[in-house]
Amino acid sequence: MSQLFQLPQDIADIAGVSKEFADEFLAPNAVAWDRDKHFPVDVLRKAAELGMGGMYVSEDVGGSGLSRLAAAAIIESLATGDPSIASYLSIHNMTAWMLDAFGSDELRQRYLPQMCAMEYLGSYCLTEPGAGSDAAALTTKAVRSDDGSHYLLSGVKQFISGAGASRVYIVMARTGGPGPKNISAFVVDGESEGLSFGPNEIKMGWNAQPTRQVILDRVRVPASNLLGNEGDGFTIAMKGLNGGRLNIAASSLGGAQAALDKAIGYLGERQAFGAPLKSLQALQFDIAEMATSLEAARLLLWRAADALDNGDPRAVPLCAMAKKLCTDTGFEVANRALQLHGGYGYLAEYGIEKIVRDLRVHQILEGTNEIMNLIISRSVLPG
Amino acid sequence: MSQLFQLPQDIADIAGVSKEFADEFLAPNAVAWDRDKHFPVDVLRKAAELGMGGMYVSEDVGGSGLSRLAAAAIIESLATGDPSIASYLSIHNMTAWMLDAFGSDELRQRYLPQMCAMEYLGSYCLTEPGAGSDAAALTTKAVRSDDGSHYLLSGVKQFISGAGASRVYIVMARTGGPGPKNISAFVVDGESEGLSFGPNEIKMGWNAQPTRQVILDRVRVPASNLLGNEGDGFTIAMKGLNGGRLNIAASSLGGAQAALDKAIGYLGERQAFGAPLKSLQALQFDIAEMATSLEAARLLLWRAADALDNGDPRAVPLCAMAKKLCTDTGFEVANRALQLHGGYGYLAEYGIEKIVRDLRVHQILEGTNEIMNLIISRSVLPG
Amino acid sequence: MSQLFQLPQDIADIAGVSKEFADEFLAPNAVAWDRDKHFPVDVLRKAAELGMGGMYVSEDVGGSGLSRLAAAAIIESLATGDPSIASYLSIHNMTAWMLDAFGSDELRQRYLPQMCAMEYLGSYCLTEPGAGSDAAALTTKAVRSDDGSHYLLSGVKQFISGAGASRVYIVMARTGGPGPKNISAFVVDGESEGLSFGPNEIKMGWNAQPTRQVILDRVRVPASNLLGNEGDGFTIAMKGLNGGRLNIAASSLGGAQAALDKAIGYLGERQAFGAPLKSLQALQFDIAEMATSLEAARLLLWRAADALDNGDPRAVPLCAMAKKLCTDTGFEVANRALQLHGGYGYLAEYGIEKIVRDLRVHQILEGTNEIMNLIISRSVLPG
Amino acid sequence: MSQLFQLPQDIADIAGVSKEFADEFLAPNAVAWDRDKHFPVDVLRKAAELGMGGMYVSEDVGGSGLSRLAAAAIIESLATGDPSIASYLSIHNMTAWMLDAFGSDELRQRYLPQMCAMEYLGSYCLTEPGAGSDAAALTTKAVRSDDGSHYLLSGVKQFISGAGASRVYIVMARTGGPGPKNISAFVVDGESEGLSFGPNEIKMGWNAQPTRQVILDRVRVPASNLLGNEGDGFTIAMKGLNGGRLNIAASSLGGAQAALDKAIGYLGERQAFGAPLKSLQALQFDIAEMATSLEAARLLLWRAADALDNGDPRAVPLCAMAKKLCTDTGFEVANRALQLHGGYGYLAEYGIEKIVRDLRVHQILEGTNEIMNLIISRSVLPG
Repeated sequence: MSQLFQLPQDIADIAGVSKEFADEFLAPNAVAWDRDKHFPVDVLRKAAELGMGGMYVSEDVGGSGLSRLAAAAIIESLATGDPSIASYLSIHNMTAWMLDAFGSDELRQRYLPQMCAMEYLGSYCLTEPGAGSDAAALTTKAVRSDDGSHYLLSGVKQFISGAGASRVYIVMARTGGPGPKNISAFVVDGESEGLSFGPNEIKMGWNAQPTRQVILDRVRVPASNLLGNEGDGFTIAMKGLNGGRLNIAASSLGGAQAALDKAIGYLGERQAFGAPLKSLQALQFDIAEMATSLEAARLLLWRAADALDNGDPRAVPLCAMAKKLCTDTGFEVANRALQLHGGYGYLAEYGIEKIVRDLRVHQILEGTNEIMNLIISRSVLPG
Repeated sequence: MSQLFQLPQDIADIAGVSKEFADEFLAPNAVAWDRDKHFPVDVLRKAAELGMGGMYVSEDVGGSGLSRLAAAAIIESLATGDPSIASYLSIHNMTAWMLDAFGSDELRQRYLPQMCAMEYLGSYCLTEPGAGSDAAALTTKAVRSDDGSHYLLSGVKQFISGAGASRVYIVMARTGGPGPKNISAFVVDGESEGLSFGPNEIKMGWNAQPTRQVILDRVRVPASNLLGNEGDGFTIAMKGLNGGRLNIAASSLGGAQAALDKAIGYLGERQAFGAPLKSLQALQFDIAEMATSLEAARLLLWRAADALDNGDPRAVPLCAMAKKLCTDTGFEVANRALQLHGGYGYLAEYGIEKIVRDLRVHQILEGTNEIMNLIISRSVLPG
Repeated sequence: MSQLFQLPQDIADIAGVSKEFADEFLAPNAVAWDRDKHFPVDVLRKAAELGMGGMYVSEDVGGSGLSRLAAAAIIESLATGDPSIASYLSIHNMTAWMLDAFGSDELRQRYLPQMCAMEYLGSYCLTEPGAGSDAAALTTKAVRSDDGSHYLLSGVKQFISGAGASRVYIVMARTGGPGPKNISAFVVDGESEGLSFGPNEIKMGWNAQPTRQVILDRVRVPASNLLGNEGDGFTIAMKGLNGGRLNIAASSLGGAQAALDKAIGYLGERQAFGAPLKSLQALQFDIAEMATSLEAARLLLWRAADALDNGDPRAVPLCAMAKKLCTDTGFEVANRALQLHGGYGYLAEYGIEKIVRDLRVHQILEGTNEIMNLIISRSVLPG
Repeated sequence: MSQLFQLPQDIADIAGVSKEFADEFLAPNAVAWDRDKHFPVDVLRKAAELGMGGMYVSEDVGGSGLSRLAAAAIIESLATGDPSIASYLSIHNMTAWMLDAFGSDELRQRYLPQMCAMEYLGSYCLTEPGAGSDAAALTTKAVRSDDGSHYLLSGVKQFISGAGASRVYIVMARTGGPGPKNISAFVVDGESEGLSFGPNEIKMGWNAQPTRQVILDRVRVPASNLLGNEGDGFTIAMKGLNGGRLNIAASSLGGAQAALDKAIGYLGERQAFGAPLKSLQALQFDIAEMATSLEAARLLLWRAADALDNGDPRAVPLCAMAKKLCTDTGFEVANRALQLHGGYGYLAEYGIEKIVRDLRVHQILEGTNEIMNLIISRSVLPG
C-alpha cells in the first residue's frame, strides 16, 4: 500500500534522476564554479535535455508539463550538488512559466522552445534599486507609442540573476500612475537596443550565476510582448513568485541536506579524545535536531507545492510559509553542519561554507522572510 | 482532484466529529476540571460511545479499527478542548492496543469490550522511581509459581496516569536477570489483592487526570495474563510507545492550536495605543511564526503516523521526530500565545495558562525529548 | 586589588544576609505557600526588620537608604527562596519610594515608618482592565472638590498585587482630559470608604501574594495625598517602574539560579544507563548554556542598576534591557532546569515547576517585554 | 561619581584612540583587503606604534604593560574596522605574551622588541591536521640532541594564522610519550632551515590574514628557545588561550557592533511602503534584541578579562563563557544586520556580509564553542 505524505512514485523517480545528474555534473564542480565565478551554461543545457528548462511549461512548446510538486523535488535534488545552480534554474523556470501562462501563442512559440532547451536563458526583472521588499513602488516606465505598436521602456532593475547571459527578460514596468494596478509585464529580448547591464556584483555567494543591474534606456518592445493585459503585471509577477518561492525553498533544503550528509560523514570518520566524534552526545543531539527540522520543512514544502498545483485557496500563504521555514531551516542546518566540521568547515575545499553562503540569500530574495511573515499573518488574522 | 499531504476525507470527517465533541463536552469544562482536579470519567465514556475508547483496537472486541493517522487526528481535535483529557485517552488506547495485539484471545474478550466502552480504564505501568528515561533498568519483579499457573508481582511504578481509577494495569516486570531481554508484560486487574496506590501527585498541570504510584506487593497474576511471551515485555512496551508518542504529539498540537486561536481572537478584539493589537507588526510576526511552525509539525506527525500504519522501516525515528517536534513546538506556541494575552494570559479563567501547563509534560513523558534525540541520531548516524 | 564588574563588598555582604534569610524563612515554605495561596505577611515583617521594607527609602523615616544596586542584589537573593515573595517586596518598595520621593513631608511621616516596618503594605495601582501595556489610556477619574481640599476617585484597577492586604495604594488617576499629561498620582488609604476589592484572581503562579482588582467608588482622598503636582502622575509612575523593572529582573535571576542549582544537584545524584546523569554530554552543555546566560544577564542587571543610581542618561533603556533579558533568560533557565529533572520536575514537591510558573509573569508585568523592546529601540534608532 | 560596570576612564580613552585608528586605517580598506586577500603588514606596524604590538607585554622590552581588560577594549575597537585584522593582532599578542611570560630573559630581549614593533610577527602553532579540538593529541615531535644543546622538531601544524609572514612561531611539540604532560613549547625562528609552509588556505573569511600549514622537517631549535620547562607546553598553550579567547570575543563584539550600526543607519535612511524602515515595529524589535544581547555579552567579556587580570579562581570558566557568548552573539547580530539590509546585505560593497564571514570562524577557533561548553560545565557540575 502506498504511503500518504510521501512523494508519489513517479515524482520520486524523477527526483532520483535529478540527484544522479547533481552527483555527476554539479557536485564535483560546485566549489570551483564558486571560486571562479563561472556560470556553467553548458551544464544548464545538459539539464535542459532532461526536461529541467521548462519544468512546468506546456508540452507543445517543449516543456515538461510537470507539477509544482515535481519541480520542487527536482530542484531539491539538484541543490544537493549546487544550490546556486538549482536556484538559477528556478528563476529561469519562473520566467518560462510566466511567458507560457500569460504570453500570446506567437510569443510562446517564439521563445519557449529555446527556453526549454535553455538555449535562451530567462531573467526575472522586478526589483529596483532602493525598493527591495516594496516591489509595487517600482518606477521603471513603459510608454506606449501613439500607434500602439510598441512601448519604450526605461529604468533600472537591481539584483537580476542571469543578467547579461539571458536572452529573455521579463520586465515589470509602470504603464500608468502609482500603485500596483498600473504595472505591466513585458518580454524584453536580450538583443534589444538600449538594453545594457551593470557590472557583475561581488556577492557573499551565488557565485555560479551572474547578478547584474539591467539598465533599460528607451528600449523598444513590441506591444505583442506584453504578458496579459496592461495593468496585470503585478499580479503576474506575484503569481510567478509563488512558484519561485517553492523552488527557492527546495533549493535551501537540498543544500542543507547535502551539508547534513557531509556532517554525518565527518562525524563518522573523525576521532577526538580517543573516541569517534559520532559518539559525543551533544553532537548526536545536533544531528537529531537538524534531521528533524529538515524533515518537517520538506513536508511543508510538499504540502505547499501540492496546494499550488490544486488551486487550494490557502496556496499563497502556504507557499510563503514554506519559503520562510525552508530557507530559515536550510541556513540554520547548513551553518550547524559547518560548526560540526570545526576548522575544516571554514575552508572552501570542504564545500560546506559555500553552501552556507549560497543559502544565505534565500532568506532575502523572492520576497524577504519578513515579507513572508506579513503574507502569512494576513491570512491568519482577522481582516 | 484530491490533494496529497492532506488528511483523507474520511479521516477529516472523523476529526470534525471529534472537534464537535471537544467543543461541546471538553472546552467548556477544562478550566474547572483543572482547578478541581476532577477526572471526568463520565465524559470519557461519552467519548467511547463515539469509538474513542479503542481507536485502533480490532472491531471484534468493540474497537474502531482505525489507523494511527486517524487516531492522531482525533486526539488533536480533542486536545483543542482539553489536552489533559486527550492525553489520557492516548494512554488508555495504548494499553488497549497492547492487550489487543499481544494478549490471548481469552484475555482480549475478557477486557477489551469494557475497555473500548471505557467501563474499564487502562493504565500503562513502565516507569519506576528514580529510573525515568532508563526504562530497561526497572526492578519490579515477577516470580513464577512452581506450577507455572501464576506470577507474583512486587515493585513500585511511578507517574502512572489513571492509577486508582483504572481497572487494567499493563505492568512491565522483570522475569529474569538484568537487561531489557528479561522483562515481561502483564495485565494486572485493578481488583487484585496486594495492589495499592500512592497519593494523587500534585503536579504543574494534567490535573484532569490522576497520577499516582502503583504499588505491587506480591500481586498474584494468572499466567494467562502475560502478553506475548516471557521476555517480550520491553519490546511490547516500546511498540506501545511508538503510537503513544504520536498521540502525545497530536495532543500538543491540539492544545497549541487552541492557544493560537485564542491569541488571534484576542489580538483581533483588543486595542492599545489607539489601534487594534492585530495591527502591530511585531505581534503579526509572532502569529505568522506560530502558525507556520504548527503547520510543519502537524505534517510531520501525519507522516510519522502513516509510516507506522504502513510498517515503514523509518517509522520508529519518524515517531520520535514527531514527538519531539510537536511537543516542543506545541509548548512554545502555547507559551507565546500566553504572552500575547498580556496579564490576562496569566489568569486561569482565560484558559491559556492551563494549556501551557498541560503541554509542558509532553516534552517529558512517553520518553523525554532527550531520549527522542538519541533515537533519531541513532537512525541517522553510522552505526 | 578589588575586581571591577563585581558587587562591591558591602553590597555582597548584604546580599549574603538576604540569602541566609531566604534559606531560613522562604525556601522551606515556598511550595506550601504556593499551594495554599498564603500571603506570609509575618515573614515580610521579619524581612522588614532587616531593612527590606524601605530599601531605598530615606533613613529619616526608617528606610535603609540603599542603592538600586544593593536592592537588586537583595531581591535576587530573596528570590532564590521564593520569587513570588521577592517580587511582592519589589512592588512594596516601589510604592514606598514613590511616596518618599514625591510625597509631602507630612505624608512621608504619616506612612513611611510603618511601610518600612511593613506594618503597612503598599500596592501600585496603574493598570486598568483592557488597557495593559497602554498605561496612559487609563480612565480612572479624580475629580477635585470645589474647595480644593480633596479629590473623589472612581475607577477600577486590574492585577493589583497585595490588594486587600495593603494599607497604602498609590493610584494613578486622570485629573484632566486624555493623554499622559493629565494623570496624577494619589496615596489612597486602605481604610477609605468606597474602596473595595475584586476576588483574589486564580493565576498560573505568584500564589504567595494576592492579586485583585481595586475598585474605587467616589473614594475621598485629601488633596495633600497627591504625589508631586497634578499632571505629574504618569512621570512618577514611570520613574517608579524603572526601579521596579530592575527588581523584577533580579527576582527572575534569583529564581533561575535556584532552579539551576537544583538541576546541578539532581544531575549529580541521579543515574541512568549505568552512569551519573552529570556525565551525559548533552546535559552538560545545557548546564553550561544556562550558567553562561545567567552570568551575562546578571551583569547587565548590575550595570542598569548602577546607571539608575548614577543618573546615567542611558539608565531608562538599560533598565528596559535588563528587565527583558533577565526575565526572558530567567524563565528559559528555569524551564530547562525543569526538563533536566524529567518527570520529577513536573511534580510540585520538587519546587521547580513553581519557579517556572512564578517567573512566567515577569515577562509580562512592569511593562511587557514587548514594551521593553519599544523603549530600547527608541533609544537606539534615530528619531 | 564614577560608575561601576563601566570601563575605567583610562581604558575608555585608549579604546577611543583605537577606534579612531580603526576608522582611519581599517574600515576604509577592509572590503578591499578581503577581496584581494591582502595582509596589511604596514598597517599592523602603524598599530604597533600605538602600542598594540605587545599590549600585555612587559615595558622593558617595548610592551605596553596593559591589562587584559584594556586589551579587550582595544581589540573590540579595532574590530569595528576589520575583525580579521583585530583577530590577527590578538594572535600576535598571545604569542608575544607567551614569550614574555615563559621565555628566558635572553629570548625575551632577542625577539620581543621587534615583536612589539611588529617588525616580527608571531604565530601560534598548536593545532594539527585531524586533531582540532583535542589539542593534547598532537604528534609533532621534538627530539633533544644528545648534548642537550638543541631539539629537532618535525610535524605539521594546521590553520596557522600569519604563517609564512611571521618570524616567530610558538610551536607545541611532544618531548615524551602520549598525553598533555609531555608537550613542550618552543620558539621557532621563521628563518630556520627545514621550516616550510603550505599554500594559503581558501577560506570563508578572515581573508586579510594568511592561514597556512606550518611544516617542520627536522627543524633545529636551540634548547634555550624552550618556554618554561619540558612538559610545560600544554599548560603554557592553555594559558595563552585564556587571553586569546577574550580577544576573539572582543573582536566578535566589535564586528557585530559595526554591523548593528550599519543596520541602524540603513533603517534610518531607507523607505518602504511609504514609511521609513525604522518605523516598522518588527524591525525595531530586531534592533532592540541585537542591542541588548551585545550589551550583555560585552559586560561578560569585561568581567572575564578583569577576572583574568586579578587571578580570580573562576577566570578560566569566565573566559570560556565570554568566548562562547560573545562569538555566538556576535555572529547572530551580524547575521541579523545582514538580513535587515535586504539584498544589499548580500553584496560585498556594503561590508556587512564580510563581517558575517569573518565572525563565523570565531565560534570555532581558540577552542570551539563546544569545547567552551565542556570547560564551563566542568566548573559548575560536581566532580
